[in-house]
Amino acid sequence: MTELADLAPQMLAKERTQGTFDVEKCVDLVLGSKQWQQRMNELRALIMVDPILKDRDFMYRNHKERYEYALAKSHAFVQFLKKHNINSHEERQFVYYQLGEPLPIDVHRSMFIPTLETQMDEEQRAYWLPLALDFKILGAYAQTELGHGSNVQGIETTAVYDVATEEFIINSPTLTSRKWWPGGLGKTANHAVVHARLTLSGKDRGVQAFLVPLRDTKTHQPLPGIFIGDIGPKIGFQSVDNGYCAFDHVRIPRRNMLMRFAKVLPNGDFVKPPTDKLVYFTMVRVRVFVSYICYRYMAFVVTIATRFSAARLQGFAHKTKNEQAVLNYENQQLTLFPLIGLSYAGMFTARRLQVIYEAMVNDLGAMDAQKLDTLNQLHATSSGLKAFLTTEVGNGMERARRACGGHGFSASSNIPHLLQEFIGACTYEGTFDVLVQQHGVSLLKRLRKPVPSQVGAIDLFGFLQVDASRSCAATSAQMLLEPEILLHAFQVRALKTLQQAARLGKSMHCVSRASMGHAESVILQCFYDGVLEINEKPLQAVMLQLWQLYALWRMNEHLGEFRMHDFLSAEQASWVEESMLGLLAKIRPNAISLVDGFGITDFELNSAIGRYDGDIYRALIERAAKEPLNKTDVVEGYHKYLQPILASKL
Amino acid sequence: MTELADLAPQMLAKERTQGTFDVEKCVDLVLGSKQWQQRMNELRALIMVDPILKDRDFMYRNHKERYEYALAKSHAFVQFLKKHNINSHEERQFVYYQLGEPLPIDVHRSMFIPTLETQMDEEQRAYWLPLALDFKILGAYAQTELGHGSNVQGIETTAVYDVATEEFIINSPTLTSRKWWPGGLGKTANHAVVHARLTLSGKDRGVQAFLVPLRDTKTHQPLPGIFIGDIGPKIGFQSVDNGYCAFDHVRIPRRNMLMRFAKVLPNGDFVKPPTDKLVYFTMVRVRVFVSYICYRYMAFVVTIATRFSAARLQGFAHKTKNEQAVLNYENQQLTLFPLIGLSYAGMFTARRLQVIYEAMVNDLGAMDAQKLDTLNQLHATSSGLKAFLTTEVGNGMERARRACGGHGFSASSNIPHLLQEFIGACTYEGTFDVLVQQHGVSLLKRLRKPVPSQVGAIDLFGFLQVDASRSCAATSAQMLLEPEILLHAFQVRALKTLQQAARLGKSMHCVSRASMGHAESVILQCFYDGVLEINEKPLQAVMLQLWQLYALWRMNEHLGEFRMHDFLSAEQASWVEESMLGLLAKIRPNAISLVDGFGITDFELNSAIGRYDGDIYRALIERAAKEPLNKTDVVEGYHKYLQPILASKL
Repeated sequence: MTELADLAPQMLAKERTQGTFDVEKCVDLVLGSKQWQQRMNELRALIMVDPILKDRDFMYRNHKERYEYALAKSHAFVQFLKKHNINSHEERQFVYYQLGEPLPIDVHRSMFIPTLETQMDEEQRAYWLPLALDFKILGAYAQTELGHGSNVQGIETTAVYDVATEEFIINSPTLTSRKWWPGGLGKTANHAVVHARLTLSGKDRGVQAFLVPLRDTKTHQPLPGIFIGDIGPKIGFQSVDNGYCAFDHVRIPRRNMLMRFAKVLPNGDFVKPPTDKLVYFTMVRVRVFVSYICYRYMAFVVTIATRFSAARLQGFAHKTKNEQAVLNYENQQLTLFPLIGLSYAGMFTARRLQVIYEAMVNDLGAMDAQKLDTLNQLHATSSGLKAFLTTEVGNGMERARRACGGHGFSASSNIPHLLQEFIGACTYEGTFDVLVQQHGVSLLKRLRKPVPSQVGAIDLFGFLQVDASRSCAATSAQMLLEPEILLHAFQVRALKTLQQAARLGKSMHCVSRASMGHAESVILQCFYDGVLEINEKPLQAVMLQLWQLYALWRMNEHLGEFRMHDFLSAEQASWVEESMLGLLAKIRPNAISLVDGFGITDFELNSAIGRYDGDIYRALIERAAKEPLNKTDVVEGYHKYLQPILASKL
Repeated sequence: MTELADLAPQMLAKERTQGTFDVEKCVDLVLGSKQWQQRMNELRALIMVDPILKDRDFMYRNHKERYEYALAKSHAFVQFLKKHNINSHEERQFVYYQLGEPLPIDVHRSMFIPTLETQMDEEQRAYWLPLALDFKILGAYAQTELGHGSNVQGIETTAVYDVATEEFIINSPTLTSRKWWPGGLGKTANHAVVHARLTLSGKDRGVQAFLVPLRDTKTHQPLPGIFIGDIGPKIGFQSVDNGYCAFDHVRIPRRNMLMRFAKVLPNGDFVKPPTDKLVYFTMVRVRVFVSYICYRYMAFVVTIATRFSAARLQGFAHKTKNEQAVLNYENQQLTLFPLIGLSYAGMFTARRLQVIYEAMVNDLGAMDAQKLDTLNQLHATSSGLKAFLTTEVGNGMERARRACGGHGFSASSNIPHLLQEFIGACTYEGTFDVLVQQHGVSLLKRLRKPVPSQVGAIDLFGFLQVDASRSCAATSAQMLLEPEILLHAFQVRALKTLQQAARLGKSMHCVSRASMGHAESVILQCFYDGVLEINEKPLQAVMLQLWQLYALWRMNEHLGEFRMHDFLSAEQASWVEESMLGLLAKIRPNAISLVDGFGITDFELNSAIGRYDGDIYRALIERAAKEPLNKTDVVEGYHKYLQPILASKL
């Protein structure tokens, strides 16, 4: 009889003979051109031999150790970029995301530099941007305060203009006004973009952004009046020095205010920004990025869990002597297959958002009414999408983890690390409740004051025009698989929940539900449009099944909402489950191909149980051998602590 | 204007003037007699001044450091018990759970000793138990293997009896047969209860338990033929050395088999156990304990989140200039209040299970048909309850964490620690899918072959007798709050999902749903019975509201199932939400009293944002000051890693 340890790789190999589409075509769909794939492989190969950058031992380190090692990685990363002459944003981004953990320069890259780019005027950019891009200054993005998170209007830090010296005085007037949370602020950054409430001649001019030097660029000592430190351990980002900072009447030059839009003249006059909607662009940009993060993390975890489930035996099938692969169980399929769907749904949605966003940014010239309308739709919808995707992916990752049993609890699977690094996304950049409220309230306004759809315009709010009086047209379980029926059902559900929110004017819960209803409808449409664009017929056929499963799974999760006013009858509702379960068997042969199709390498996955080759048991044993406690047979504490207990000498 | 930092404690104090019941009466309900409360306070006060036992700095430590510190804590714990002459199980248990983290002797206490007690014969107990109770030996419980978790029948470790020497030969024949996961096995235990498949004269005699010495009791070195170590970091239990162990033909005396039930005679003859159901007792015992764990952890986290939400301001109410406490938002209430309900529901359910279990254990003498039937019901139901409670509490803790925004992500809130220590419960002692399957299949058997309810018997399966053809009788939203209507709805839903599972014979998903339907119905009944028994009228009235909210929340979560065959009409379904939202406002004034009513001290909570006095902002700042990275203004790595980057010297 074959040993389990040898059987596991054989089982996974066998799975790969059962797929009905060419996995390489799917990888092309996900990762892009062959040329870019080859370049990624070259860069990855270089990283995999770099003694510092290839490190993946973070699981053995506490926060302080992780931060310290991440400093070494930051150093090696910058060196690597220079040595290999890597200058494009795309390639730098790729290299960075191969490192397996965020670095103390994370926010410098992802928030500080983009903020200088988008909020500084030309002269300011010319001076500061090269310094930042070349890492001659390291920046933080200091908005959140101890007393206020998502609510920017609550910010207490003040900036008062002193006409005499042409300086701003940045101050933390209360205990809760200290900046709290910004990544890199605690120990790394020597500058920060600081958000503060501006006062000009005693008049409140709203929250503005200022570039504040924090530390001496030679000695790295905090500058006078600046009190700064690390806020301590967290669930994730342990390699980053999320920090706090208090300002005691710190003076900065007038030109350190970011002046692309709002401006303060030397005499203290205030120049208003042309529109207050411009800040939406930054928010949308971040949300597009978060959508990508959602798709990637979900894809990573579901790849690990699906491969493990195909290689792992547990329990006996009804009346047979053969142990079953865990993936043969209906519950396991119903846990994992929709999450494969969620990954692809996230990918197509992120891409659609990016296309809309880029089209807008590249055509900023004249903000006419139609463009402003699109910006509004995009801003509102991306709020809801961020809330939906981070919540569902966070929950989905945890469900997939539990589906791996004990091995999902062990750091060797890498799922704990992925989950811990991801889960902050559920609260950073706007908590769920704040975002769905923004989105839902915006939808409510449109419901009361509809804007007719315009030809050529981006029509994210199209569901408002759907006929909600028509109940579901499906007359059989089979008909429930038809795209038109499914898309219509999601639009009607979005509209009905919105109408309900309008009726019960004060219910935040109903508004939230309307937001989620709309977000789901948009995602389903993006996913479907993505499937339609696939040229490879066998791949497209499987993706369509995955789309159907995803749709029915979401419907089943919120069946009560779809049955509102009996839009679905009791009989139709019973078909949802029937059709959903029926699809599992259809997708089963392609499960491994669908996760292989994400094109994630073993180096990236870093998972003993998610390996491509299925050799999971040897990998687990190798990992355990690396545990520092195993360096000696008898632990140091034995003589001092255990021996007296055992000898009853206490 | 009052500073936010000062406002927070005032807000929480004001909350406490609004409750309608006497919090002390609730604490009595939860914690028990005044005498026992006083004793707990005495013991806790002693712990709080013990330099080792009071430590709560685990957040700064990696796995190796946490294990090493936990050894020191184990030593101090045993010393503490002896010094203060603490011998009762109840008091020892209390002291242990005040330590804030599990110790390497966790499984010695919770599994090893109870197994010796229940599975050794009298002579064996007389020899081994005193050694274990006095910590002269330290034991592990080695069942799970690398290749097999929940499925005991898959165990590969072998025990072959050698008649010549009257010894068993314990062996790990394959790579996947090594023991994997047992707590304390890696570095601490010098003995283990090892489960292995017994072969007598070539005949398979099933999986049996053996006491195997692992390490030299003097030197602590592993004994010959034993390969042992720690499996590495995990999400939780980082202070425990979960270990692996392989046996190379290790010989142990015949009398090291645990022989209370099955026995092997010197000549190799096998004596079968009287019934194979006896193992159910151990499983039920563990599940009762897990139910308590669920209730306690949920209560801890919801206490933190509710107090934080009452003391935290965010955003402005509609058309006012006053910032709102987060707890005033409907979404926050709908997140937290049902979780307060879940905590109490878990408490009452755990108590009920314990009563049933103890009644059975104390009357083991004659296992007649009725007792066996009760044992079967209890075993099956407790499987479903474990699956339901661990899943819902795990999810609920995470939802409550997210409801605290960024502060819930920070270790200072202590929610990350609580979540990480708890979440293993979702997979250990049986994963969700294995348990619901056991439960659901057992229910299906009863549906096909019903056993009439017996007077005096415990009737967990009573829902099988309900009339499922009757649709819901509520004719108004108000009527939906009536206990009889709600309890009936949950029973009908359980029965309908079970009948559906019977129709779709092969669907594991439908079986799982029936299991959850029944578990929910049992919990709702236990919670209701608990409310009925409360003598204090004002407390009872509030608890009844909480019960109603809990019931409607569960109904709303699975509205599709409650609408099966239109048991609830579309109109009735709309009342579920309406009534649920209506209850939030009723419960709001008592929210803080309800969490204060759990009687959890600040020392136990260990949370900067969950403090009783609401002084959360100063507490957060104090915590941050303790972060080791803050010992110096400029980190060690600056000169080596940061300075060269900043000076562009790379």
